[in-house]
Amino acid sequence: MPENKIWSDEELLSSGLLHRSLKVAPHMVKNATGSYIHLQDGRSILDACGGAAVISVGHGNTEVVDAMTEQLREVAYIHTSDFTTSASERLANVLLQNYRDKISKVYFVNSGSEANEAAIKMAIQYFYEQGKKNKTQFISRKQSYHGNCLGGMSLSGHIARRQPFEGIIGSNFHQVSPAYEYRYKNSYESTESYVEELAKELEDKIVELGPDNVACFFAETIVGATTGCVTAPAGYFKKIKAVCEKYDVLLVLDEIMCGSGRTGSFFAWEDEGIVPDITTAGKALSGGYCPLSAVYLNHKVVDTLASGSAAFNCGHTYQGFALSSAAGLAVREIIDRDNLLQNVRVMGTHLEKSLKQALLSSNIVGDIRGRGLFWGIEFVADKATKKPFIPSARVGYEIQKRIFARNLAVYPGFGTFDGLSGDHILIAPTFNVTEAQIDVIVQTTAEVILLFEKQFHSDQI
Amino acid sequence: MPENKIWSDEELLSSGLLHRSLKVAPHMVKNATGSYIHLQDGRSILDACGGAAVISVGHGNTEVVDAMTEQLREVAYIHTSDFTTSASERLANVLLQNYRDKISKVYFVNSGSEANEAAIKMAIQYFYEQGKKNKTQFISRKQSYHGNCLGGMSLSGHIARRQPFEGIIGSNFHQVSPAYEYRYKNSYESTESYVEELAKELEDKIVELGPDNVACFFAETIVGATTGCVTAPAGYFKKIKAVCEKYDVLLVLDEIMCGSGRTGSFFAWEDEGIVPDITTAGKALSGGYCPLSAVYLNHKVVDTLASGSAAFNCGHTYQGFALSSAAGLAVREIIDRDNLLQNVRVMGTHLEKSLKQALLSSNIVGDIRGRGLFWGIEFVADKATKKPFIPSARVGYEIQKRIFARNLAVYPGFGTFDGLSGDHILIAPTFNVTEAQIDVIVQTTAEVILLFEKQFHSDQI
Repeated sequence: MPENKIWSDEELLSSGLLHRSLKVAPHMVKNATGSYIHLQDGRSILDACGGAAVISVGHGNTEVVDAMTEQLREVAYIHTSDFTTSASERLANVLLQNYRDKISKVYFVNSGSEANEAAIKMAIQYFYEQGKKNKTQFISRKQSYHGNCLGGMSLSGHIARRQPFEGIIGSNFHQVSPAYEYRYKNSYESTESYVEELAKELEDKIVELGPDNVACFFAETIVGATTGCVTAPAGYFKKIKAVCEKYDVLLVLDEIMCGSGRTGSFFAWEDEGIVPDITTAGKALSGGYCPLSAVYLNHKVVDTLASGSAAFNCGHTYQGFALSSAAGLAVREIIDRDNLLQNVRVMGTHLEKSLKQALLSSNIVGDIRGRGLFWGIEFVADKATKKPFIPSARVGYEIQKRIFARNLAVYPGFGTFDGLSGDHILIAPTFNVTEAQIDVIVQTTAEVILLFEKQFHSDQI
Repeated sequence: MPENKIWSDEELLSSGLLHRSLKVAPHMVKNATGSYIHLQDGRSILDACGGAAVISVGHGNTEVVDAMTEQLREVAYIHTSDFTTSASERLANVLLQNYRDKISKVYFVNSGSEANEAAIKMAIQYFYEQGKKNKTQFISRKQSYHGNCLGGMSLSGHIARRQPFEGIIGSNFHQVSPAYEYRYKNSYESTESYVEELAKELEDKIVELGPDNVACFFAETIVGATTGCVTAPAGYFKKIKAVCEKYDVLLVLDEIMCGSGRTGSFFAWEDEGIVPDITTAGKALSGGYCPLSAVYLNHKVVDTLASGSAAFNCGHTYQGFALSSAAGLAVREIIDRDNLLQNVRVMGTHLEKSLKQALLSSNIVGDIRGRGLFWGIEFVADKATKKPFIPSARVGYEIQKRIFARNLAVYPGFGTFDGLSGDHILIAPTFNVTEAQIDVIVQTTAEVILLFEKQFHSDQI
């Protein structure tokens, strides 16, 4: 699509395309390579977040492009009732190769939203096939995010994102507390007792709803955009899994954002010592080259389906799409060949150390948390009391904007604390990021935060 | 993805990929070109349905492949909060160029399911911005299909597709009768009075729910896979639009399957003499090259948003995706340059005439209906009484299977009559189909139907 013309803000705002904001024009991108996005106005932006943690092997990777072109020349779309392609079969087999004892099958769709909707439906069908037709209640966590279609949005516990739509959210969706130590563990209690409390809250909720009515518990292994890379307290998922098993409730882990290698393990749950019944994943899986998400199903789920109707009652035009599969395969081959999960771990450790060091003196940085190349910085008006900034100050966005002005892209978030107040930014570089790039990311981010703090802290907030 | 190995049925069934059926292996595709899908086993299938009416400019079109490769080399994914691409801007402007008085903006997502979810949310937000926070009730039609995520599934009136999931469908979703003359217009009444009745039913439903509570009426301009290309009776949409306007209810037309040129007009509603508030479209829009669906919004909706929050509260990773946009642009350029909508109309007329002629003598073909290159053949056990076949005979599937055995792909459907019984097949060739190909499609289809009728009709059903 060669086009040398630079689009003006007026042209962009009067464009036929509905942008995220009807008032602020986005920047026109010329092209993107590796960790950089090049704008039509001549600027190059170091991409430290890959949008919403989407980019895994960099932008414009020629190996991925070539693999996709080859697939396009062969076949893109076919209907999966009658046909299949070696690309989708191979991707499924490659992804499951080290997990065959834990995972039986994978179902591919476009988006994380679609994947979570499919997980919801699969959980219901799993019980329906066993005659447990009342198991249709869902439990998720506050300040979570599971997508923008009605099912995922109903699961999601982020107040602001749900706001206009409360009227259509059904009565089957229930929430318990997030596992969010920085905010909700009392300083006098141990992590162990905090975890006990959370597990008890889930158990109480299941008992309250009636175990015969609850289909599953839905959680992000590491919470993504809503709270900013909040990892679970030690032992949390083991306790949660035990509660789920006790009451015949499926455990669904949403790894749309944190999975597919982002944290240094292919599944983020590998570091939690448990295996969920269903895992959803997306974003980094195809690294932004083509819409691809996955719903991984364990043997229990697939065997129940197989001995029942033998068909998942949820078809999509682009399920098992050959082009997306080719993208996923190429991304995975690069990750394996270049040992990129190792780089995620090593660079992640460097990023963590450098961020903590550079922001140690800041009084508005309350918490830095994450794993691998998935880090969140939570801002507070007061470090001692953890008081959040007032929402109208839009501190997360303001800081992100100032960082962007220095040609660095990070991902802002709000409602961090309770779905309404609280601010953070998210850093999620490409899996092949270099140490030098990490140093630029940290230095720029820290400089902006420290300057923001100096200019705005005392008087304006 | 070169791979010469032919996958056995056993390998396919034990594959890691969750197929639509856990018992029947799909056919492995080698490649696809134009109207043909070439299998690994050496067979070539004439694709008379493009899967679910997805293929528009044929398979493996090198111009589309080249445009997508060029886009991939430039940029694929960017986050649409901060960035945009000329591909997505240009696609929006090209699609809207002849409709600027009727449509203000378009929002791109992956799938039809996502598009309909976005339309649901936009309808609610439209009223929310005006302080009409109770307008959250939805009315759609029985035997309709609007997608597989929770919102679209809740709208959809196809009993069998909803079956395991009834327990999570919220109370905001209501249904009225389909506009389905062949089945539901009494032979003694005029089309005009049938249409009056349907409009009155909608009006009564709105009054029953309370006009202050109803957000929108959702309908497929031409019903797709659930009833098989059922066009609305003359004057239906004009009456429906008047009812919607009377009660400040938005009219959303779902053209995921029938739009984007499939019926010979770019929007199927152009032949109905009305303009809806919101239109959703997909499938043929990118012709199967990359997931792309569109939500078209009229000025009333966009202006209300602009003067309110100025942001649609529904973000997706792949909204406005550059690669999908490049695919959509290339498909559209080919359609325009090669005057393919004209071919759709001419070949559509030929298809209609030939089908009706060839199946005139059949006693199991109850109705042949459609428009452009979108035709449904509804089967009945008795032509005079219109009695459907018993569902367990799976007549639609059986006929489709026999047609497939003759290397022709058509699309089967069931529940045509009332969501449980009734059978049809759907024919939707590529926009550049030739007369010779149409003749093969008709001849093969008719031969199989007439033979099926002879062998199975009297004794087995």
